[in-house]
Amino acid sequence: MSVTAAQGFRAAGVTAGLKASGKPDVALVVNDGPSRSAAAVFTSNRVAAAPVQWSRQAVSDGRADAVILNSGGANACTGAEGFQNTHRTAEKTAELLGVSAGDVLVCSTGLIGEQLPMDKLLPGVEAAAKALSGEGGAEAAEAIMTTDTVKKEAVFSGTGYTIGGMAKGAGMLAPGLATMLVVITTDAQIEAAALEMALREATRVTFDRTDSDGCMSTNDTVVLLASGASGAVPDLDEFSRGLGMLCSKLARQLITDAEGASHDISVTTINAASERDAETVSRAVARSNLFKTAIFGKDPNWGRVLSAVGTTDAAFEPENLNVTMNGVQVCRNGGVGDPRDQVDLEGRDVAVVIDLKAGEESATIWTNDLTHDYVHENSAYSS
Amino acid sequence: MSVTAAQGFRAAGVTAGLKASGKPDVALVVNDGPSRSAAAVFTSNRVAAAPVQWSRQAVSDGRADAVILNSGGANACTGAEGFQNTHRTAEKTAELLGVSAGDVLVCSTGLIGEQLPMDKLLPGVEAAAKALSGEGGAEAAEAIMTTDTVKKEAVFSGTGYTIGGMAKGAGMLAPGLATMLVVITTDAQIEAAALEMALREATRVTFDRTDSDGCMSTNDTVVLLASGASGAVPDLDEFSRGLGMLCSKLARQLITDAEGASHDISVTTINAASERDAETVSRAVARSNLFKTAIFGKDPNWGRVLSAVGTTDAAFEPENLNVTMNGVQVCRNGGVGDPRDQVDLEGRDVAVVIDLKAGEESATIWTNDLTHDYVHENSAYSS
Repeated sequence: MSVTAAQGFRAAGVTAGLKASGKPDVALVVNDGPSRSAAAVFTSNRVAAAPVQWSRQAVSDGRADAVILNSGGANACTGAEGFQNTHRTAEKTAELLGVSAGDVLVCSTGLIGEQLPMDKLLPGVEAAAKALSGEGGAEAAEAIMTTDTVKKEAVFSGTGYTIGGMAKGAGMLAPGLATMLVVITTDAQIEAAALEMALREATRVTFDRTDSDGCMSTNDTVVLLASGASGAVPDLDEFSRGLGMLCSKLARQLITDAEGASHDISVTTINAASERDAETVSRAVARSNLFKTAIFGKDPNWGRVLSAVGTTDAAFEPENLNVTMNGVQVCRNGGVGDPRDQVDLEGRDVAVVIDLKAGEESATIWTNDLTHDYVHENSAYSS
Repeated sequence: MSVTAAQGFRAAGVTAGLKASGKPDVALVVNDGPSRSAAAVFTSNRVAAAPVQWSRQAVSDGRADAVILNSGGANACTGAEGFQNTHRTAEKTAELLGVSAGDVLVCSTGLIGEQLPMDKLLPGVEAAAKALSGEGGAEAAEAIMTTDTVKKEAVFSGTGYTIGGMAKGAGMLAPGLATMLVVITTDAQIEAAALEMALREATRVTFDRTDSDGCMSTNDTVVLLASGASGAVPDLDEFSRGLGMLCSKLARQLITDAEGASHDISVTTINAASERDAETVSRAVARSNLFKTAIFGKDPNWGRVLSAVGTTDAAFEPENLNVTMNGVQVCRNGGVGDPRDQVDLEGRDVAVVIDLKAGEESATIWTNDLTHDYVHENSAYSS
């Protein structure tokens, strides 16, 4: 399933020993063609990891034959040696597959500021190449997990073609993109330029609006590979819609598995003067630690929503604001609305809707609550 | 002490019954003159509480005779009724003191979105007026506490005059300003315009750089009252310096008592191209939940510093960045520096220094770690 759901792809996940836990930590996805169109988007963090710097360059010609991924080390802030290690990883993969190193993308995830143990990683790459299979998607999805508790996969069936994807990401989930590695494959016949346009639009309204803890990673990468193996030339609208749905499904899986989360929260701003305003307001609320701890405490503390909205430059009048939490309009016209004890926050899903009454645009940010477990997991991560 | 350290001021703190705990909740500070110069700065949150809206207007003429403060309710997002309640509070105070309501500032702190119980508050104002005393500073400082565990006071002795202040603030501490109420008094002889200039500069580099949880309040107010009772006309440089020191002391007390904090952290950015760059970088790090949880876990995870720095638009080259934690240069030239296990994070104070190597400006943001107790206190606050 996932990255091997589409025809023309093989994948593998193996254990190289990068993780202290002894769990799988190297994944490989290979496009057997006939086409090798590719597009990718990367973190906008200016402190970009070595594999991001490498892959950004490698995919710029619109072609990629394979993606080699490792968990157990981010290879970020590792200087010239770190970049050389990424280069060696790509070369080793290329050699084993009989392709050019410049057509191998590299992704890494794990702790920042440590060199990768190449004496373990390179044999891992070799093992992964040997284990490649048309059924290897699930193993690959498992090998990219870090603090993820479940693997993330999704599939979309288009007219005569398939799109499949895998993702990892649990902490450091924030826009542009969330901390995530995502590989998506399709057997549709589609050119790199069209792939890139579809991918940018899909990530803009899915992964870019997934904001678990406001922290932007150094390693985020979303890769889309097209083999053309189905022979189907997709309708571009359908393909974009399908890709968007697939990315949305993966993004929701990321939020649901976010570190320590006990509530999945959608923050939707409606009737904004612009989509940017709507996104800004939703994100300000989604990033408020006070709002997030209140939801953890099952407390419909709408004052913390309003105080976050008030920090933005979006167009609105404070005395017009409405806030609805799980269907109850707790704030009406900037003041007290229906009784807050009518709001039921026992379930996992929380929907907050903010009405700016300033236009017709809307946007949703997906986030989660701030819990004891988040603090616990993140205070213990590298030590 | 504190607001009654300077001559010409009386204060009181009483229990009106606004707090379920039965602790003091109404404070009154009165300027007996001969001068009544005043200046104030307020939250930049666009969702401003009723008392902020009132006081902003009342102080605009540079005069204030008294400040009436209550804990146990923020009177924010309370509509026309809330504003009327603030107005009634000012009128009641004015009537008791024989001054004009337009010269009475009002401050409130507590839960957002609930009307104040005026049947308790107004008798409380009366009790406070009766209890006024030249020794009442400590009682006043106690009555403005919410989740504060200790009262905050500071005094500066100038040449022939005194500046004294009190503050409250524990959660929702963020810039522009932190969630805080601060009243500062001086018996120096000084005009409102000079007061305002000195106050703006002092808050800019103290309270505005205190960022506990990134959440900006609806009620922040810092008031400075001058009685002229000492007869001393201060040197403006000395006065500004003294005021800055006093604000800095109060700001540090706020951070040290921030909800659930176990470490007090200074994040200093040096060699920045501009002061704005330095502040932006320090604030990005200070607001990173991943950085803050790492410090809670006594983990010198400098990768989380760099990943926060990388989200800013400050001038720097990633490969030039140095990061020092409690004296150990853990990151050198964007890569691995001295061993992270040399960093001692057992103590309460943590100093992080980020060297951008892009200029000569610097700025410090004071923050604290993100702990289980923060999550606990803030998930239980209104319920």
